[in-house]
Amino acid sequence: MNVPLNNLGVVKRNIVRADRAAVEKLARFGAATIHEAMGRVGLFKPYLRPIYPAAQACGTAVTVLLQPGDNWMLHVAAEQIRPGDVVVAAVTAACTDGFFGELLATSFKARGARALVIDGGCRDVKALTAMGFPVWSRAISAKGTVKATLGSVNIPVVCAGALVHPGDAIVADDDGVVCVPRAMAATTLAAAAKREANEGDKRAKLASGVLGLDMYGMRQPLAAAGLRYVD
Amino acid sequence: MNVPLNNLGVVKRNIVRADRAAVEKLARFGAATIHEAMGRVGLFKPYLRPIYPAAQACGTAVTVLLQPGDNWMLHVAAEQIRPGDVVVAAVTAACTDGFFGELLATSFKARGARALVIDGGCRDVKALTAMGFPVWSRAISAKGTVKATLGSVNIPVVCAGALVHPGDAIVADDDGVVCVPRAMAATTLAAAAKREANEGDKRAKLASGVLGLDMYGMRQPLAAAGLRYVD
Amino acid sequence: MNVPLNNLGVVKRNIVRADRAAVEKLARFGAATIHEAMGRVGLFKPYLRPIYPAAQACGTAVTVLLQPGDNWMLHVAAEQIRPGDVVVAAVTAACTDGFFGELLATSFKARGARALVIDGGCRDVKALTAMGFPVWSRAISAKGTVKATLGSVNIPVVCAGALVHPGDAIVADDDGVVCVPRAMAATTLAAAAKREANEGDKRAKLASGVLGLDMYGMRQPLAAAGLRYVD
Amino acid sequence: MNVPLNNLGVVKRNIVRADRAAVEKLARFGAATIHEAMGRVGLFKPYLRPIYPAAQACGTAVTVLLQPGDNWMLHVAAEQIRPGDVVVAAVTAACTDGFFGELLATSFKARGARALVIDGGCRDVKALTAMGFPVWSRAISAKGTVKATLGSVNIPVVCAGALVHPGDAIVADDDGVVCVPRAMAATTLAAAAKREANEGDKRAKLASGVLGLDMYGMRQPLAAAGLRYVD
Amino acid sequence: MNVPLNNLGVVKRNIVRADRAAVEKLARFGAATIHEAMGRVGLFKPYLRPIYPAAQACGTAVTVLLQPGDNWMLHVAAEQIRPGDVVVAAVTAACTDGFFGELLATSFKARGARALVIDGGCRDVKALTAMGFPVWSRAISAKGTVKATLGSVNIPVVCAGALVHPGDAIVADDDGVVCVPRAMAATTLAAAAKREANEGDKRAKLASGVLGLDMYGMRQPLAAAGLRYVD
Amino acid sequence: MNVPLNNLGVVKRNIVRADRAAVEKLARFGAATIHEAMGRVGLFKPYLRPIYPAAQACGTAVTVLLQPGDNWMLHVAAEQIRPGDVVVAAVTAACTDGFFGELLATSFKARGARALVIDGGCRDVKALTAMGFPVWSRAISAKGTVKATLGSVNIPVVCAGALVHPGDAIVADDDGVVCVPRAMAATTLAAAAKREANEGDKRAKLASGVLGLDMYGMRQPLAAAGLRYVD
Repeated sequence: MNVPLNNLGVVKRNIVRADRAAVEKLARFGAATIHEAMGRVGLFKPYLRPIYPAAQACGTAVTVLLQPGDNWMLHVAAEQIRPGDVVVAAVTAACTDGFFGELLATSFKARGARALVIDGGCRDVKALTAMGFPVWSRAISAKGTVKATLGSVNIPVVCAGALVHPGDAIVADDDGVVCVPRAMAATTLAAAAKREANEGDKRAKLASGVLGLDMYGMRQPLAAAGLRYVD
Repeated sequence: MNVPLNNLGVVKRNIVRADRAAVEKLARFGAATIHEAMGRVGLFKPYLRPIYPAAQACGTAVTVLLQPGDNWMLHVAAEQIRPGDVVVAAVTAACTDGFFGELLATSFKARGARALVIDGGCRDVKALTAMGFPVWSRAISAKGTVKATLGSVNIPVVCAGALVHPGDAIVADDDGVVCVPRAMAATTLAAAAKREANEGDKRAKLASGVLGLDMYGMRQPLAAAGLRYVD
Repeated sequence: MNVPLNNLGVVKRNIVRADRAAVEKLARFGAATIHEAMGRVGLFKPYLRPIYPAAQACGTAVTVLLQPGDNWMLHVAAEQIRPGDVVVAAVTAACTDGFFGELLATSFKARGARALVIDGGCRDVKALTAMGFPVWSRAISAKGTVKATLGSVNIPVVCAGALVHPGDAIVADDDGVVCVPRAMAATTLAAAAKREANEGDKRAKLASGVLGLDMYGMRQPLAAAGLRYVD
Repeated sequence: MNVPLNNLGVVKRNIVRADRAAVEKLARFGAATIHEAMGRVGLFKPYLRPIYPAAQACGTAVTVLLQPGDNWMLHVAAEQIRPGDVVVAAVTAACTDGFFGELLATSFKARGARALVIDGGCRDVKALTAMGFPVWSRAISAKGTVKATLGSVNIPVVCAGALVHPGDAIVADDDGVVCVPRAMAATTLAAAAKREANEGDKRAKLASGVLGLDMYGMRQPLAAAGLRYVD
Repeated sequence: MNVPLNNLGVVKRNIVRADRAAVEKLARFGAATIHEAMGRVGLFKPYLRPIYPAAQACGTAVTVLLQPGDNWMLHVAAEQIRPGDVVVAAVTAACTDGFFGELLATSFKARGARALVIDGGCRDVKALTAMGFPVWSRAISAKGTVKATLGSVNIPVVCAGALVHPGDAIVADDDGVVCVPRAMAATTLAAAAKREANEGDKRAKLASGVLGLDMYGMRQPLAAAGLRYVD
Repeated sequence: MNVPLNNLGVVKRNIVRADRAAVEKLARFGAATIHEAMGRVGLFKPYLRPIYPAAQACGTAVTVLLQPGDNWMLHVAAEQIRPGDVVVAAVTAACTDGFFGELLATSFKARGARALVIDGGCRDVKALTAMGFPVWSRAISAKGTVKATLGSVNIPVVCAGALVHPGDAIVADDDGVVCVPRAMAATTLAAAAKREANEGDKRAKLASGVLGLDMYGMRQPLAAAGLRYVD
């Protein structure tokens, strides 16, 4: 990559997005399933929470790097949004300010964005809930931000501990947010489908009273590890 | 002010409340709008959260200073409540105990209080939700408190980082809690109304696809700051 | 007790559970009332929160000690569950991983478990909500766990600051989680009933405008403590 | 006060400082003693910690209100410093950035400042330690800040939960930071001296084996409160 | 145990302390070694930190249960201290107040106490350092506490997540605090000695360049687990 | 990059390290200067702190991805260390366990490692201090870890919010930890040298009483931004 990570003052216009069809299919799976299907990588830290219950979103990442207390770059990012995108906003230092609210959501939605994932705060929760525009944020705060200092758009960012390249697929729900690197969208989709297929069978067995101890064949390894039963 | 801040063992009976009519009108605006209208001051720290979704309240402050683990002064405060008040309770040290529950809420409500903002914990969430008595708190905890040590009522307090004088206007919703000093209620009201008037127009433009970059005239200052677009 | 606290690699099969009838009656009271009735002991730290609103549970404890990032012992615990149990899972170090999700919940439910209280993370919130299987956890995280290292089942554990012996009664709701030691179930029940009986009367008085200051006879002790009223 | 709290974009040049002689005498007492002498008010939250052990400072407050990630106002404040001042910097939202380092410390020291108390981060710890310029901060961070947005200087601020007016006396040591309102400097001094006089005597008694139970006459009130001794 | 956990208002006078000779020998080992020797149980949460570097202590526990913001029971505990004891203080809710300072330390030292472990705050750090009286605390705060509400002394307590019975052995150093149940002092001592004997040999091998991979025979299990080396 | 981020179970043996001579020269600058010279990118979150004061280190990164509570991969990493390396260990979920202590430090040192940066806990602080082996960690904890689950070595990792590729240069001191991407070592060195050259001059001016307001030409932009001076 020629653009150094976290480089400031740059907007990349032409990004390659993960395959649209694959992304739409990823939307059928939850973040937990995707995370497993990825081999347990790509998860955002769990302090990011949806601003309303049962929020769900899936799309391709437009990335933003913000400065603490400054949302200027979100306006710059709006222009780069295409239908089906999810904006992923990192901040150079932990900040709970309300970087995003109803007006920006209106603009993002008009541009076709499906959601925002932000390692900062959000406000106008009531209006965003009414609009059905989901946000995963680290805080909710009425405090607005200034527009004074450059960050960047569509560079690789680390957001809540996850590395996100522009165009990666983002899957988010009540359980959290996962990033699927663009090149892994298809294989992840296949792995998720396979995993979910198995789950139905397992669920039925467990519901009938079969124990995981038996279904997964755990009794022998537990004994080998030294587990002892006492009365 | 003659009463020193955080002075212990004092109850001020006669406080001057913000103009009733102005406060009622403030209730039409959200905490985020009020915070902007105030010039971005007066916000409580965002760790205060409503105990149930979509809570909203507006009123004049009766202030309380509590000791950790001790809610004696909330009983003293109850007597000072007048219809339309919001009780604002600071604690001398961070404490998550459940200082407030159904019985006190019943009493506060009977006295005409509209809400409680407390830099401590709250309990009886189910009952408070059923009663429709909103509380913004730093925690929810079943742990009760003792009644052993004096604090004060209706002195200036610092609650969750915000300075509140008795009689100030308090606006609280899903986005947080803001204090409008008594003397600023009218000007804040005017500023909020003006701000909200502008927002409708902006919202419509953004919804139609106009970018904030153009609507706010940001392209030139961004270029001046050195923003560069790459492909 | 012969089994040392937090001993690793042990499963105790025969535990003595708190009296079933008493436990069912405890379910009529909230965690806050039980905590008071216990003499204000037995409360789990308030950072444990229910994964959905209005969750409520009451049952006898099956205890588990987990290693960080490892949920092997939850599978072992499933076999020890009897109808009416609540699983209480401690972790040897703070960890937000999603130790528990839909499959384990299906198994636990099939065994008769009523809830999980875990000093770690939980996932599959949407499915658990749909199933009506309540969990009190310190976090929600899509991140799964391994099955590699022994912990124990049905030993005394410290979970979120509360000491729990297998068979103790657990009461959990929106206000938090309380442990009632097995031997105290009956006396706690009596104390809770008595307390609640008093509350109805108090509530009515307070609702009619009587002040706690008068109802509880606080004016004299407040004056003795030095409280002074100023104008 | 005519200048509203947290007003942005204002520098007050003429402030009335606490009496120099009283402040110098306050320096003989620790923060804990001063806090007691004040009647247990005026303490900054304990998350503020000195950047090196055994730091101690006492002086008159020059106050600053900063924006997150922006230290512009510290440069503005430098001009307002007079010998014997302690700069107290609040931030409009929690931020760990390194707002202050060696160069600013050099400037502050040249102007006669004795210390900085900042509800944000600090950097250049090695150099500041070598210079002997003490800082109480909420974090240490190598991350620098921009100079883009106005805050204010010498307005009343809430810093780490404490209300500070310009000219108030600040006492800081290993135990924390206390603000003594200008008008209370003399009475606080007297109370601190009285308190410390008593402490020598108490210390000698306790060192000789006398119990606080007897020295403070606690046995009777403990018994009255219901304390019971068992074997 | 007849005294219920966390029972309030009780002082147990006659406690059985861990064998003095064994405790003295435990003092030769660090907290990490003891924790390993115990089978990795009994550790206090790592948020407890010594108030000065290189602090070290070992002794028998006198336990205290405090209320938030109230240190009355520390005075009651002083009378129960015997030479060689370490006071372990739990608090019914998280609180950073300075429950303990120079005067109490003087009294504790005069009674023969070697250290304090407290799940709350401490003050007078400078004086305690000068006295060489070590404290492990969750915070340092100049804020004093009241003496108004009963707790207990010498009941089992949960302190920073560790269950401690009066008379248990406590080992504390820079790495943290461990509780060795009274009945396990001798076996722990033996296990610690054995462990440390092995460590010298291991240290020498590793210092000479031998890899843990070879010394511990890890290459085969790593390969079996699927580890693959790439160029 | 062919190896996906955070891929589990992989050890990359041949990594390209940043130019040795450039890295040695970087060691002359502090983390704050390097962070500035990099354009304010590459900083680890400030919750990583050195385990002893005045720690300093500079070297090339050997990266490790650990599982919570499991330090197996640190042993695998030891073999990949070459003289002048700094080991950078990420963990798949936040964990304070003591992953690293005296024995591993002995091994790392024997292999030529200069330091460890770990997004987890560390133990044996006393011994590590005596050895002069610096560690930057998120916690100190006596709790050891298991060796049961694969992670990876020398893959790109996100550690405390910073993206680190194997072979990148790491600079760490009292102010924090910075990662200089391998390809940027030379330019960063040049920028740091230039920056430091300027600082000497600035320092002298500020020490002589010149204000930053004048030295940086801030008066005009402050006035333009609306700053007003009042008396």
